[in-house]
Amino acid sequence: MLFSPLLKQLIESLRCLPGVGPKTAQRMALQLLERNRENGKQLAQTLLNALEKIDHCTSCRNFSEEPLCHLCKTPHRDPSLLCIIESPIDLFAVEQMGHYRGQYFILMGHLSPLDGIGPDNIGIPQLNSRLTQGSIREIILATNPTVEGEATAHYISELIKQHHPTIKTTRIAHGVPLGGELEYIDSGTLAHAFAGREVI
Amino acid sequence: MLFSPLLKQLIESLRCLPGVGPKTAQRMALQLLERNRENGKQLAQTLLNALEKIDHCTSCRNFSEEPLCHLCKTPHRDPSLLCIIESPIDLFAVEQMGHYRGQYFILMGHLSPLDGIGPDNIGIPQLNSRLTQGSIREIILATNPTVEGEATAHYISELIKQHHPTIKTTRIAHGVPLGGELEYIDSGTLAHAFAGREVI
Repeated sequence: MLFSPLLKQLIESLRCLPGVGPKTAQRMALQLLERNRENGKQLAQTLLNALEKIDHCTSCRNFSEEPLCHLCKTPHRDPSLLCIIESPIDLFAVEQMGHYRGQYFILMGHLSPLDGIGPDNIGIPQLNSRLTQGSIREIILATNPTVEGEATAHYISELIKQHHPTIKTTRIAHGVPLGGELEYIDSGTLAHAFAGREVI
Repeated sequence: MLFSPLLKQLIESLRCLPGVGPKTAQRMALQLLERNRENGKQLAQTLLNALEKIDHCTSCRNFSEEPLCHLCKTPHRDPSLLCIIESPIDLFAVEQMGHYRGQYFILMGHLSPLDGIGPDNIGIPQLNSRLTQGSIREIILATNPTVEGEATAHYISELIKQHHPTIKTTRIAHGVPLGGELEYIDSGTLAHAFAGREVI
């Protein structure tokens, strides 16, 4: 028993953070105690506060402490365009691009039957009820180009074809990324790039 | 404003942890909110509790929520041997070796005049008063073999020579680490290894 019981408990608790193993947790606990008690206290209080108050936005499912998030409240976004993404981090990526002015719907995951994640877990009923409100004309499926992301995109597009046939559904293009070299591109991506070629 | 104010505040607070930059903090905050709310709450409460209750052991300066830490309370450690180390992590390393059965004194840092860290900040007055109690016969200086660690060891050894001339002061040996190859050892270490050679 080299660390005191409470210190041990703190080190154990810190391991719930992603990417934090036993050594990193030790370093974090000792550093907080040695040099950073004020910030540590603030972190603990903010964390409690955030976990209590932050819930999902009722419209786009993003994290928000208010019923409607900032992006859903603003009148400057085109209400006829809806971009469907997997996680709030992806929203960051799309917004950084700077070209998209529509609204979002965040699945908070992707379909993964083996892990027990079905349509209800990724907010499909909520998406459905949002689509029936009628102002949306195009849906851009921007789930990740992984097996699960593609399956999720396919599932949603089929659903929209069935229940909302007037809405246009698009998928972001797959192809060679800018700055990439053909030599290092996998053949699946290259096949997509050839199939999706455009006249210049 | 892509993240809600409270989420932003949480991400900012997480950056007080060592080695956590903006991207990692984002990932941590989102993961805690998405999948780990219970553990997150427990972490916050443990952190508050630890920061409030954990102080320094009055004898060895290690972190402890009680006035005397576990290692100082146990009767199984040799009270005539005192090992001086820089941080609680070093105690872990020495204990893992398994050969040392004496007691410890933890400086919680090293002398660093440029950063304003003087003898009072590394507990020298407390060490002095512990030495005057008289049961210690040997002090092992096990500060790190860095410039600051060596300077700190030198300072303490001079102090002991002056005020407690009956106490034997030793420094852990510098030399070639086991499993190392001479080809890759720096010349400073090699010089120490030659100067400290022993008859076999």
